Amino acid sequence: MDYVYGPGRNHLFVPGPVNIPEPVLRAMNRNNEDYRSPAVPAMTKTLLEDVKKIFKTTSGTPFMIPTTGTGAWESALTNTLSPGDRIVSFLIGQFSLLWIDQQQRLKFNVDVVESEWGQGANLDVLESKIAEDTAHTIKAICIVHNETATGVTNNLAKVRKILGRATEYLQTSVNLSHIFFLSLDTYFSYSSVTFMECFSCFFIELSDNYMHPALFLVDGVSSICALDFRMDEWGVDVALTGSQKALSLPTGIGIVCASPKALEASKSAKSVRVFFDWNDYLKFYKLGTYWPYTPSIQLLYGLRTALDLLFEEGLDNVIARHSRLGKATRLAVEAWGLKNCTQSEEWVSDTVTAVLVPTYIDSTEIVKRAWKRYNLSLGLGLNKIAGKVFRIGHLGNLNELQLLGCLAGVEMVLKDVGYPVKLGSGVAAASAYFQNNTPLIPSRI
Amino acid sequence: MDYVYGPGRNHLFVPGPVNIPEPVLRAMNRNNEDYRSPAVPAMTKTLLEDVKKIFKTTSGTPFMIPTTGTGAWESALTNTLSPGDRIVSFLIGQFSLLWIDQQQRLKFNVDVVESEWGQGANLDVLESKIAEDTAHTIKAICIVHNETATGVTNNLAKVRKILGRATEYLQTSVNLSHIFFLSLDTYFSYSSVTFMECFSCFFIELSDNYMHPALFLVDGVSSICALDFRMDEWGVDVALTGSQKALSLPTGIGIVCASPKALEASKSAKSVRVFFDWNDYLKFYKLGTYWPYTPSIQLLYGLRTALDLLFEEGLDNVIARHSRLGKATRLAVEAWGLKNCTQSEEWVSDTVTAVLVPTYIDSTEIVKRAWKRYNLSLGLGLNKIAGKVFRIGHLGNLNELQLLGCLAGVEMVLKDVGYPVKLGSGVAAASAYFQNNTPLIPSRI
Amino acid sequence: MDYVYGPGRNHLFVPGPVNIPEPVLRAMNRNNEDYRSPAVPAMTKTLLEDVKKIFKTTSGTPFMIPTTGTGAWESALTNTLSPGDRIVSFLIGQFSLLWIDQQQRLKFNVDVVESEWGQGANLDVLESKIAEDTAHTIKAICIVHNETATGVTNNLAKVRKILGRATEYLQTSVNLSHIFFLSLDTYFSYSSVTFMECFSCFFIELSDNYMHPALFLVDGVSSICALDFRMDEWGVDVALTGSQKALSLPTGIGIVCASPKALEASKSAKSVRVFFDWNDYLKFYKLGTYWPYTPSIQLLYGLRTALDLLFEEGLDNVIARHSRLGKATRLAVEAWGLKNCTQSEEWVSDTVTAVLVPTYIDSTEIVKRAWKRYNLSLGLGLNKIAGKVFRIGHLGNLNELQLLGCLAGVEMVLKDVGYPVKLGSGVAAASAYFQNNTPLIPSRI
Amino acid sequence: MDYVYGPGRNHLFVPGPVNIPEPVLRAMNRNNEDYRSPAVPAMTKTLLEDVKKIFKTTSGTPFMIPTTGTGAWESALTNTLSPGDRIVSFLIGQFSLLWIDQQQRLKFNVDVVESEWGQGANLDVLESKIAEDTAHTIKAICIVHNETATGVTNNLAKVRKILGRATEYLQTSVNLSHIFFLSLDTYFSYSSVTFMECFSCFFIELSDNYMHPALFLVDGVSSICALDFRMDEWGVDVALTGSQKALSLPTGIGIVCASPKALEASKSAKSVRVFFDWNDYLKFYKLGTYWPYTPSIQLLYGLRTALDLLFEEGLDNVIARHSRLGKATRLAVEAWGLKNCTQSEEWVSDTVTAVLVPTYIDSTEIVKRAWKRYNLSLGLGLNKIAGKVFRIGHLGNLNELQLLGCLAGVEMVLKDVGYPVKLGSGVAAASAYFQNNTPLIPSRI
Repeated sequence: MDYVYGPGRNHLFVPGPVNIPEPVLRAMNRNNEDYRSPAVPAMTKTLLEDVKKIFKTTSGTPFMIPTTGTGAWESALTNTLSPGDRIVSFLIGQFSLLWIDQQQRLKFNVDVVESEWGQGANLDVLESKIAEDTAHTIKAICIVHNETATGVTNNLAKVRKILGRATEYLQTSVNLSHIFFLSLDTYFSYSSVTFMECFSCFFIELSDNYMHPALFLVDGVSSICALDFRMDEWGVDVALTGSQKALSLPTGIGIVCASPKALEASKSAKSVRVFFDWNDYLKFYKLGTYWPYTPSIQLLYGLRTALDLLFEEGLDNVIARHSRLGKATRLAVEAWGLKNCTQSEEWVSDTVTAVLVPTYIDSTEIVKRAWKRYNLSLGLGLNKIAGKVFRIGHLGNLNELQLLGCLAGVEMVLKDVGYPVKLGSGVAAASAYFQNNTPLIPSRI
Repeated sequence: MDYVYGPGRNHLFVPGPVNIPEPVLRAMNRNNEDYRSPAVPAMTKTLLEDVKKIFKTTSGTPFMIPTTGTGAWESALTNTLSPGDRIVSFLIGQFSLLWIDQQQRLKFNVDVVESEWGQGANLDVLESKIAEDTAHTIKAICIVHNETATGVTNNLAKVRKILGRATEYLQTSVNLSHIFFLSLDTYFSYSSVTFMECFSCFFIELSDNYMHPALFLVDGVSSICALDFRMDEWGVDVALTGSQKALSLPTGIGIVCASPKALEASKSAKSVRVFFDWNDYLKFYKLGTYWPYTPSIQLLYGLRTALDLLFEEGLDNVIARHSRLGKATRLAVEAWGLKNCTQSEEWVSDTVTAVLVPTYIDSTEIVKRAWKRYNLSLGLGLNKIAGKVFRIGHLGNLNELQLLGCLAGVEMVLKDVGYPVKLGSGVAAASAYFQNNTPLIPSRI
Repeated sequence: MDYVYGPGRNHLFVPGPVNIPEPVLRAMNRNNEDYRSPAVPAMTKTLLEDVKKIFKTTSGTPFMIPTTGTGAWESALTNTLSPGDRIVSFLIGQFSLLWIDQQQRLKFNVDVVESEWGQGANLDVLESKIAEDTAHTIKAICIVHNETATGVTNNLAKVRKILGRATEYLQTSVNLSHIFFLSLDTYFSYSSVTFMECFSCFFIELSDNYMHPALFLVDGVSSICALDFRMDEWGVDVALTGSQKALSLPTGIGIVCASPKALEASKSAKSVRVFFDWNDYLKFYKLGTYWPYTPSIQLLYGLRTALDLLFEEGLDNVIARHSRLGKATRLAVEAWGLKNCTQSEEWVSDTVTAVLVPTYIDSTEIVKRAWKRYNLSLGLGLNKIAGKVFRIGHLGNLNELQLLGCLAGVEMVLKDVGYPVKLGSGVAAASAYFQNNTPLIPSRI
Repeated sequence: MDYVYGPGRNHLFVPGPVNIPEPVLRAMNRNNEDYRSPAVPAMTKTLLEDVKKIFKTTSGTPFMIPTTGTGAWESALTNTLSPGDRIVSFLIGQFSLLWIDQQQRLKFNVDVVESEWGQGANLDVLESKIAEDTAHTIKAICIVHNETATGVTNNLAKVRKILGRATEYLQTSVNLSHIFFLSLDTYFSYSSVTFMECFSCFFIELSDNYMHPALFLVDGVSSICALDFRMDEWGVDVALTGSQKALSLPTGIGIVCASPKALEASKSAKSVRVFFDWNDYLKFYKLGTYWPYTPSIQLLYGLRTALDLLFEEGLDNVIARHSRLGKATRLAVEAWGLKNCTQSEEWVSDTVTAVLVPTYIDSTEIVKRAWKRYNLSLGLGLNKIAGKVFRIGHLGNLNELQLLGCLAGVEMVLKDVGYPVKLGSGVAAASAYFQNNTPLIPSRI
């Protein structure tokens, strides 16, 4: 099994799956348990509460599905949409491409908005489409927050702005809520609708006045827990991530979080689904047993610990750390005289950097050699940028010295394959940034 | 996290998830890895070869999907059938009920053949349906090998007999194969079809002459690796299991194995699917990278070790061990003066025993008390037998003394809740059987 | 490595090393750390405080030495005694024999007080010796609290009584202390002695009036954390245990706890020692770095968790649990028609039961067969009772159903080797006791 | 427990305890076992055979004692020497100082040969002493192969040369052995002495003709498994190491290897010892049960895996890797404009580098800051060089990129504390060396 064993630690810098913290490994090192005993639901309850924090939502409903990111995509789409629904989707790299492929195979009518790989989503096109769509034929906007193949981060706040003035809406909603709640007692005495149904109507009504009703679906697989993400503030309707990315767990949980509007949509969505059906979860949430089918006990304990570690570090500190790691990586790339695949500063990603190599070099050789000589795992270039870029993942459970070791390794490999890099140059640039910007570890002050 | 900790080991006797062997826990205790490095595909290749052995198939194609048993069900159905297809399905307990629910929600036209809970599938009804179906409107037979809710094992060999003379077919196929292979050289020199395509046509043609063409889909979740199961010999088209059952792993891999006929059917099946689509796997199998999306590295290493342990013990010895554990449990139940929920000896299950309690006792109390007082996890009665049975799971990584400890615990709990059991009686009956039938541990002779 | 692997859990019933709780295994599953960083001393400080609780001492000073029980013995002796010192030591089984052998090789002048194996220490002889020793030539009494070879527990309170009226002494000391402390300010202004030195003198002086000055050294290896043990109340001067016994850790820490009187004695003890020298520890205690040489990081974290679990269960509950397990085992032995090696009820041990077998049976065969057929590890008979007894260890991280599984296994093995046991008889007797006496698991009420 | 947790991996660069390989952590993640079952002796037998390879001895007898390096020292001394024996010992740093302290406390008559810290053992003084000692009053030479406090490696081959022409001796011995063995049959028919006793006499006799009879005792704690060490070729009589050093295990096994001459000496050595007595081990070796007291099951399995990994990599490759890591570290130190504490190239250590800091910097601040800001553990300066050096341990389970990450961290910390280092300079120097000298990982070619 360990026939590829090399001495020392492996240096894992693919943009997922990422390095697991030792306390998480420990927490998962356990026998199975009866998930119908009182212990597992009690823990699950805390997880559902706490997992909302990583989405920055209070009104969302999370689902922790035993699947991967691909399954989480499918869950987001099939629960909210019906075959034939028109959706707008942005093609900017391999992962948005795969999601679009899924959308088409699930029989949605996809307006593909394509950009050159290395650019962000073309939001001007979105703006026109929204402006033209007075009939509200667009049912959803699907966007990858961070395209892992090219290291491009899209501007979700801007998407929100295009879809409608969410902020003003929310303001108003708060102002109105006073009156609204005052009249609730009276209202409910004459009505059999639940409070949530009532509130949802109110919500939809209001939003019609202020914004396009399309659902806002976000793939946050390589962003959530690492980049700034604000589900409630940005009015995201479905956001999703996978356990093996910035949460730093093994693969196995697709976490999907649905806004009240998305939950409402799920009631009429006609896409066929069973395994991914939110409704089965909601039934068990009500029963307090939480699980329609067997979860991985080990991953639940792992998630509990992963969340504890994130909150202990502080979510804002986690994001700041990723910002440092991303910035330092880009400074190194610059020092090497190489170009970032990301074409403009506005889109640079703090979780993954795709590095363009000169045409006389095959980037696949870099990845192979890094693994064979230095036990360093880098990401390959995918699809149309295969051979042209290699990728450095800098997300999840990672710190400054790990990254500097990786950058030193990349330098040696660049030299190995014939690129005339000045050894130490990238490390020097990154170190200078770190030395000025890295805070003390809070628990050690 | 361990707020329900009790001293000593927990006694896990639910029929899944089951006890994980220590070597498997060790194998899974590891950091993530790049699944695109050469190491993971190399291991995956051995897994795909070896996993076929637990299905007793040489011609099947396995898929190790990051999902649960419920997802494995969905994969089996959506890859082989189209909405509206007529299928025959047997309702004999909670898990067959849930599968039927899934079949209906996936828009198949299900002939539900119901039995009283505690009985096996009504194969007489199947026989009539097959006999009447000269037009071949039945596209699939769906059957749960072992119904975990009632402890009922169905007779799959008999299903095979009803569907057609598979054995004779196979005999003939062997006889014909001589001629067939002789002519291959000639044949292929004139043709561009692959051998497999050619063989598949041949297969379909032959089988049309000898048996009903309905696909034979089997839920082997609580049987495979524990009960006698023979995919090839019984002509099963899709068989499936989950990692947390007799394989004794954590939840997280749904293993689905497809016959050549099922693979052929998947080419024309119109059910919408993406995450569960076999075709995505087949593409990556051809590439030699194996994974359309990120697998759990930990579960792959765990599966590798679980298979190694099974083969070291010997699959036949594993099945014999389950037979011993099942028999001993039933002898204990008899000694206690209680009835097995399974109504006839022909259906008794060697992986789970559902025990009927007197009407003056609520079986839920037994399960609660076992957990609270003796750290013993038993299975609840489900749905229409809730409160009426409790279940003893005796599958997976388990030995004689563990079971005897459990039986002693059940006796004490029975007394706790007011049933006048003679303490030691069940243990005595089970021990007598073990003392006569348990072989030495082979590695220790 | 696992060439002796058998399916299911192993059943470990030797009287040490014992079963490790899963949370402890998890805590120890970690990389090395710099033991000179601030983290390790901070944890060590809590361990030294908390470890005193398992000795029931507030005045003792504990040493957590990277060694085994044999090393802990050596530490206790060499730090308090000088070559040629007369000591009284009780030979009642293999482990007391080994300690005596060590005492003699360390050049002490040992009065060996021998009992028949199966009997406790002959305290009448001790009484005469103490009475005769008006010249105080006896420097220490060495006694094994629980002889693991025969399952005999000695009466330490009675030893205390023979050595002198410790309780009265302590009473007086408390009464006097008022006056004593009042005069301290005055005293220290004229003196350079430390408070402890001063207090020690006072202590010695007082005790000379009330009790024989011999040091009271106790091997608590198979008693501490399992049997009632009261270092302060019984005036024990050195008590010791090993991590792999009732603390339920791996082997590797010998814990030795010294009374103020023992610490005082260490200043003049002339036995040559370096590795085991308390003084090296005391120096590092003062520095706050705690470790004169490298400790096992893993065992420190393991000990932290083991103590947490013990305190969570409650030390009195732990002792009550061992009492239940011991009593139930003895009831089973009786039901089998066999005799306990322990000759009288006053000495029965709640941590290990040595079972005498009929002369026509070789007990070694029982141990071998248990391991080879049922994955059950029992203790061999040692030295002069080799072949005549087998031992059931029932200490540490163990619960009722585990023991019942073991007892069922013993019954089958007894039958295997030709003893006409009634299967189920021992389990019935033990179950009846448990069913009446086992409380609910507190965390699950 | 993890209150000092920081994100990402810790960077452990103290010269012990060192980083544990993941496969070793896995192997140790297990419950206790009965060490008297057939499994543990069977494994122990392989360990004793294989552990000799790391000492490069075929004639030595190893002892795996549950203790630390300090205990291993004590075992080496007390088994071979008697109180009052004259020994020559070299004081070159904190660890040789501690060993000398132990030697004196064990009542040996120590000729301390002191060097300035940063220099190797003064072998000229040894030469004179040996030359003068025609009466053979010197019973042993004690030398630390690699002084961990100063990063100084002593020349053991030269010590051998001074003690006598070992190589010629061995040559002769081989030539004579032919005659010797021919006469064995005859000899043994008249004699009751064992072959080993006979051979030992022969050995002693011969050696008297060719070399000084002093025992050659070597502390290989921070050298064995990392530096070139040849027990047989250099005629070392006792060599020792600790599990937490280059073997990359947790603390807990002191491995001591004795030559036939040392074993012979142990028969007459009068130092008092019990726990450390080789004779107790030898008795159990003969019985085939191997253990006089309880070993750590976990460490045995860990050692088994550690040895497997070492042999898989190849001991010579392991040594070459340490040579690369050491060289690269020294190049970095030079690039930073700092001095190595080691005063001459002849003594440089490939397992630890002690770096002298300018007088205006307190090296303790460097160590503190590295841990607090970058999760980097460096070694403190000890005793008379406290505050003046910090140490980089580069031994055990370590690779190039880990070291480069560490060097980058040291650079930033140097800048933090006011030393005008050029960031990236050390990394560049080390990288250049690695890029030219690091082979591909053999298992990945």
